[in-house]
Amino acid sequence: MDLKELEDIEHSQEEREDFSGEKVKPIIVFYPKNEEDVVRIVKFAKQNKIPVIAWGSGTSLTGAVSCNGNCILIDFSKMNKILEINEIDWYVRVQPGIKLIDLFEELERKGFMLPPDPASFFLCSVGGAVAESSGGMKGVRYGSFREWVLALRVVLPSGEVVKVGEPLRKNRAGYDLVHLFVGSEGTLGIITEIWLRIIPIPKRKMVTIAALLKDFESAADVIIGLRKNRILPELSEYVDADVVRALNKHLNAGLKETEGGMLLISIEEDMVNDVLKVLEGKTVDVMIAEGEEANKLYSLRAQAAIAVKAESKNVFYAEDIVVPISKLPEAIRKLKEIAAKYNTKFYVISHIGDGNLHPNIIIEDKEARERAFEEIARMAIEMGGSVSGEHGIGTQKAKLMAEQIIKHNGRTVLDLMYEIKKLIDPDNIMNPGKYVELAYKYYKEFSSQTIEIK
Amino acid sequence: MDLKELEDIEHSQEEREDFSGEKVKPIIVFYPKNEEDVVRIVKFAKQNKIPVIAWGSGTSLTGAVSCNGNCILIDFSKMNKILEINEIDWYVRVQPGIKLIDLFEELERKGFMLPPDPASFFLCSVGGAVAESSGGMKGVRYGSFREWVLALRVVLPSGEVVKVGEPLRKNRAGYDLVHLFVGSEGTLGIITEIWLRIIPIPKRKMVTIAALLKDFESAADVIIGLRKNRILPELSEYVDADVVRALNKHLNAGLKETEGGMLLISIEEDMVNDVLKVLEGKTVDVMIAEGEEANKLYSLRAQAAIAVKAESKNVFYAEDIVVPISKLPEAIRKLKEIAAKYNTKFYVISHIGDGNLHPNIIIEDKEARERAFEEIARMAIEMGGSVSGEHGIGTQKAKLMAEQIIKHNGRTVLDLMYEIKKLIDPDNIMNPGKYVELAYKYYKEFSSQTIEIK
Ligand SMILES: Cc1cc2nc3c(=O)[nH]c(=O)nc-3n(C[C@H](O)[C@H](O)[C@H](O)COP(=O)(O)OP(=O)(O)OC[C@H]3O[C@@H](n4cnc5c(N)ncnc54)[C@H](O)[C@@H]3O)c2cc1C
Ligand SMILES: Cc1cc2nc3c(=O)[nH]c(=O)nc-3n(C[C@H](O)[C@H](O)[C@H](O)COP(=O)(O)OP(=O)(O)OC[C@H]3O[C@@H](n4cnc5c(N)ncnc54)[C@H](O)[C@@H]3O)c2cc1C
Repeated sequence: MDLKELEDIEHSQEEREDFSGEKVKPIIVFYPKNEEDVVRIVKFAKQNKIPVIAWGSGTSLTGAVSCNGNCILIDFSKMNKILEINEIDWYVRVQPGIKLIDLFEELERKGFMLPPDPASFFLCSVGGAVAESSGGMKGVRYGSFREWVLALRVVLPSGEVVKVGEPLRKNRAGYDLVHLFVGSEGTLGIITEIWLRIIPIPKRKMVTIAALLKDFESAADVIIGLRKNRILPELSEYVDADVVRALNKHLNAGLKETEGGMLLISIEEDMVNDVLKVLEGKTVDVMIAEGEEANKLYSLRAQAAIAVKAESKNVFYAEDIVVPISKLPEAIRKLKEIAAKYNTKFYVISHIGDGNLHPNIIIEDKEARERAFEEIARMAIEMGGSVSGEHGIGTQKAKLMAEQIIKHNGRTVLDLMYEIKKLIDPDNIMNPGKYVELAYKYYKEFSSQTIEIK
Repeated sequence: MDLKELEDIEHSQEEREDFSGEKVKPIIVFYPKNEEDVVRIVKFAKQNKIPVIAWGSGTSLTGAVSCNGNCILIDFSKMNKILEINEIDWYVRVQPGIKLIDLFEELERKGFMLPPDPASFFLCSVGGAVAESSGGMKGVRYGSFREWVLALRVVLPSGEVVKVGEPLRKNRAGYDLVHLFVGSEGTLGIITEIWLRIIPIPKRKMVTIAALLKDFESAADVIIGLRKNRILPELSEYVDADVVRALNKHLNAGLKETEGGMLLISIEEDMVNDVLKVLEGKTVDVMIAEGEEANKLYSLRAQAAIAVKAESKNVFYAEDIVVPISKLPEAIRKLKEIAAKYNTKFYVISHIGDGNLHPNIIIEDKEARERAFEEIARMAIEMGGSVSGEHGIGTQKAKLMAEQIIKHNGRTVLDLMYEIKKLIDPDNIMNPGKYVELAYKYYKEFSSQTIEIK
């Protein structure tokens, strides 16, 4: 292997860590400045059968960028341009390395929004968010990235460049490959250009209701109450009492501390009373914020994981389960049982409006931490939920994903995913040893008894 | 081949026609009453290597259900139940044969809507709409079926039953196979159960503006004007002057006839003035309708294709191109040129708010009709648009789809689609000779010169 032929591409030799503390030890880090550079790197990797991993911002919480010594890392920080904001066709075309926050700011200046706003928006790259099909705080109304990606340019493992999709809202020309690449965690190809649908910023005035709840259970009651009353907020996010304390301690948040944590609900101003009615009897305090004050609450919510990380001194696994809304009360009860069993607290951050909970597991002992982690994910599977709503699978959740698919979807579904991976990446150079491929390995270990699909 | 083993499943021997007049001549038509029946039929087909075609309601406009003597047709009219409306988790679970209109009515009774509303909603099945990823009149705000399908049960060509997806808004467990099956036109498997996301009917009062335009060009100007003013209507549908005349003639519509056709825009009542401002100078008459009157306009728009069919005495091809909104003026100019060249009129129906135009080509001579049809589709390709926004490909558009993909996406994308088809349906028994498989055959005929992806 002679890296010389690539030496004109900016590079460095360094080790990194992702946000969850997983090690990233590549042979070399490249900083391509255009698609051509990426093609050359991928072709080189193919010839030499070396794994290639794309690095957006390393905020992955599932080890999706981890590498233990044998990989080329492609860092997209130099491919960070907005290529076009089309104000008539309502799309934006960007390079993958642009930070989501930079894109948001530019769009806002022109009266547009790209709704999916992962809490990491001030850190993460658009490429990473697309590769993870990230969700956001406004997901309850607007969905995850998958609902906003129109088209992608991708360097396939063969080194060939293709475009999947069209920069059009409607297009029925062939099987939907866009959604195969969205959420593929860098295992099918390297994304070099992205078309995203954008919409005008709604003109109606929004307010944010910060409800300090009596207890965690009340959060579930409120969400179910909103559902029963057919209310669809723009934001319905919950952080528990321990997260509020961590925010105060590490980020000087100045939030009121109560036993029940804080629920944030954003809604059109003229619907506030409908929400307040649902909140009745479930709160110890309610504040209605708008403008700067609402922004501050939103931004504190976004930084909740930062506070938890500081609190935990890096000893944390961020869970990312989804449960059906109707099962939220049961899920909360069981979470408390599991926490008690492990003699710990879970620091729950959540997109609760979608049933997407992040119990953050802060247990020093790695083995116990892993057991608690699996117990929570299995609870979600049992309830008809998912082991991941948005953080994806990486190395961390492959086994649990296999369990979920076998129980809910059928073995053949995992076979099919694996066959697709082999079809597109026959030499297995794209972020190998993770996600579907790893899940498939685990699944081979399961007994072959037939399981009824539920 | 001994059909006896299936004789307990209700069946008939008959020929049919789809809405576009394509012949459907199966060996036998089965009317399964449950998934087990479907599994038996598919296994039988696999053993005997006979093509299987699912029939929803036969409103396909692209020959997607056509069969020339050698196929088993599975008619889903007996699998038409709503299995569950979940009022907390906000999904509905149905069998594929249910008519969309029946589902809409039941949902409305409970305060919910499933937004994508193909103009064929009073005829088509939900299974057909999912298999086509159908769009709707409200697509401009709410998107096509692909944005509303959560999960599917599918009988694969092997006879195995799997579930793809989860009945959850958020789920990141593996590659997105749901979107591979949505819009697969019955070529990858037979759908037996469908989970669709639903939302509450918005509480805000809507009105419908019926604008009689000065000319077709004005329709483009209005849509671009709405875009520039960051206005996102719920409905923005246009039918040209000839369609209005056909509606009056065949359905007693009682619409005012002008030279510029009719644009329907639905929007929240408090935003009507913003829309009227955009309409200024482009209309000869404007009517603002609500309630029953608005419903009547909506329902006339839905029946526009029926009127055109009556007018054309079945000699019509319904085009389904998409052009970027910004290219609408150019597209309209060129459409007029093409019409003049063929000495015809196009009876344009359109989801114009998404750039999705249906020029209906009514030329007696089949060859000339086909030439005009291709010319329009190629215009769309040249403009960076698509040969299909919602009607799909079937037998009718395979060649044009191949051209689009080669020019916009790269040959490899079509290879990949074809490989996926072979992977899932190795014996090629699922609706063969159409869509991706047929496009792939055409594409083999193209020269192998490299084409720059645009
Ligand atoms: C504080 C914090 C809050 C978070 N909140 C949320 C949240 O609300 N919602 C949510 O969904 N997630 C959240 N996350 C998780 C994470 O931020 C998201 O998944 C994020 O979008 C990843 O972006 P990134 O640029 O850091 O990607 P990375 O971590 O660098 O990479 C993630 C994956 O994408 C792949 N990838 C990156 N770029 C490319 C490319 N160009 N081509 C192909 N593959 C590529 C990588 O190989 C890897 O598999 C949070 C994380 C943190 C630290
Ligand atoms: C008057 C009229 C208006 C229309 N307006 C619109 C519109 O606004 N938007 C739009 O998108 N389309 C429109 N169409 C086209 C057509 O109606 C849609 O594509 C429709 O959704 C097809 O439904 P169907 O039940 O008739 O399906 P069919 O025509 O019976 O079948 C369509 C395809 O789906 C497959 N299929 C059906 N059921 C299953 C199943 N259970 N499993 C697997 N595959 C299956 C079939 O094999 C076939 O390939 C219109 C058609 C007409 C006649």
